[in-house]
Formats: sequence, structure tokens, C-alpha cells
Amino acid sequence: MSVLTEVLSANEAYAESFGDKAALALPPARGFAILTCMDARLDPAKYAGLSEGDAHVIRNAGGRASDDAIRSLVISYKLLGTKEWFVIHHSDCGMEFFTDDVIRGLLASSLETAALGSDGFTDVGEGPGAREGDYIDWLTISDQVESVTEDVRRIREHPLVPGRIPIHGYIYAVSTGRLIEVPEATEVGAAR
Amino acid sequence: MSVLTEVLSANEAYAESFGDKAALALPPARGFAILTCMDARLDPAKYAGLSEGDAHVIRNAGGRASDDAIRSLVISYKLLGTKEWFVIHHSDCGMEFFTDDVIRGLLASSLETAALGSDGFTDVGEGPGAREGDYIDWLTISDQVESVTEDVRRIREHPLVPGRIPIHGYIYAVSTGRLIEVPEATEVGAAR
Repeated sequence: MSVLTEVLSANEAYAESFGDKAALALPPARGFAILTCMDARLDPAKYAGLSEGDAHVIRNAGGRASDDAIRSLVISYKLLGTKEWFVIHHSDCGMEFFTDDVIRGLLASSLETAALGSDGFTDVGEGPGAREGDYIDWLTISDQVESVTEDVRRIREHPLVPGRIPIHGYIYAVSTGRLIEVPEATEVGAAR
Repeated sequence: MSVLTEVLSANEAYAESFGDKAALALPPARGFAILTCMDARLDPAKYAGLSEGDAHVIRNAGGRASDDAIRSLVISYKLLGTKEWFVIHHSDCGMEFFTDDVIRGLLASSLETAALGSDGFTDVGEGPGAREGDYIDWLTISDQVESVTEDVRRIREHPLVPGRIPIHGYIYAVSTGRLIEVPEATEVGAAR
């Protein structure tokens, strides 16, 4: 079966047992938001105990506090009433295994998928590549404690983010499924 | 119980039944990615049938093809091998209920949460507000078919996105849980 067929078939089953979820309100019932990584191994609904309707979930490569994540968080509290936020990065994140220079070089070389070996990523494709990657900040990560703390700080200090919202910093361990607090981040993110 | 206590308690239960998920590989096992909205009512793992390890999930306000979503999608295929993408917006999206001018005015007025009435959002807080919202494109939506099609087109035409990746455009109906194809978008997003 193709991916598309599989997704539509799973969706059909979900819709058939949809129950009373049509009655859920637009604003998150439990009044919080999670910013986390797009990584396939992470299921924030499962690791944080969310049901449909509970909380906003924002995800990107790394779970970074990008401009777009901040756009989403501001909409989340200003229009939809969330009162508390989590920034959750994770162990063994793909964002630790390359730098801006590496991905820019790989993209300039070809638009095929690179291979990951013990020496990092190497390009296996034939060109053409493209140089647009030179103009993108890829928001790579060298240390999880640091990246969580930096991102909580960016959100805390953003002029559109009110000081009353606590921002909790955590690392999800992909080896155990556990959330591990980053106390430095939680301190930076405490409500003022 | 506080939100934080609830989340950590749910996480403890998840970790205790984590099973063999520590063995999951970093690259998505089923080789695809979903870009969808942060809306609390959406659970992409449930509506699309994903288990941990299956697929990248990127989420922001609206499920829009922002620069940051494109950063994430490029990392998704170039370094982690996804071969097929979905852009999934949804009915009753909060992004339909305001404009850039509305949210800019609300943020300039105060950093309290606005109230949503039949006339749209009105500010109920006392200042101070902030003008930083004037410099943000909020990526609001006036029509779902249009927004999905526009976003698939932006991704399709991006210089770092190879033509071989099909991009499917869908709308998730919050009243039924069903994914409804946007044929215009799927046509734009077809592999070349």
C-alpha cells in the first residue's frame, strides 16, 4: 500500500470512531502549549498525556523558538488563552549532527538525500543542487541544555510575551520516554 | 493539580510502559512528513495513523508553509530521507477569525488575552501593549482551499525542494475527523 492509501485508510478508521469530538471548543481546554521537535519518535500527545482539545502543539526541526514558533505562541495566548508553555527538545536530535556549513554544502551539491555515516552526512547524489540554503539559519543544536535555555530565554524576553506566562524547559529522552527538567531554562522562564 | 504536575505524571506513566521504543531509528520509518496546524483538536498521530518513529510532524498556527516549516521540510528530506509530504489545514481554524490589522491592534492595546464574541476578538485587558506585532506576518487564512493550495505551491516552487517529492493537500474536518482532499493543491503538488 502507498503511504497516501495507508494514511487515508487510518483516517477512515479514526473518523468512524470519532464520537463526540465534534463538540470540542477551539481554545485549548487545558490552557497550555508545547513547543517541541518534529522528530518522528516523539508523540507529544502520548508523552505529555494530551487528549484532542487539550493543548496547542507547535513542532519544527529541533523544537526551536524560531520567529514562526513565536508567531504561533503569541496567537496561542493572545487569541486562544493559553497560560503556560513548555519548550521540549530531545536527546539524539538530528539537529546535533550537522552545522549550517554542512547542510549548505550538501544542498549546493545536490537535492538528493545525503547518507549518514560515522563521519556525519555525506552527499551521495548527483547535482544539480541549489544555493538558497546559504540564506537560511538552520538553527542547529550543539548542546541540549543550552538550546532549551536559549530558546526559553528568547521567548521570555520577546516584547509580545507577557511575563505572567511560565515557560518550562525540558529534554525528552528518546531512550526512556522521560521528560527531564532543564532547571536553568525553567529559572529563566519563570513567571515575573 | 497544576498543568505541570499533570504533564509530568502522564509522562511518568508513558515512560513506565515505554517498551522497546528506545530502539527506534532517527529517520522516519515510513518516510513521510506532515505539516499541520497547532490546533488543540488535531492529533495528527491519531488522524493519520502514526506510531512513534513513523513520520515527521511539523505544526504551527494554521499549518502554514512558513520559512520555518520549509527549513524543517528541507532537513526532513535532505538529511532524514522523507519522500512524500502532506499539508493539512482544517475547518474552524482560529486563523480565519482575524486579520493582521486585528491582531496588531489587539497586541498594541494590551498583552492580555482578548475575548472572542460574535463580532470577532475584542480586547478586555488594560495596557501596556507592544507594537512588535506590526512587524510580523501572521499568515492568517481567509479560505482553506486557497490556503492549502497556496502553501503546497510555495513548497513545490521552493528552490531547495526536489520535484520528485509529491505534496498532498488536505483539509481536516473538525466536525467529523475526516481528511478531505484539496484536488487543486494535490495537482500543484504532484511530483514532477
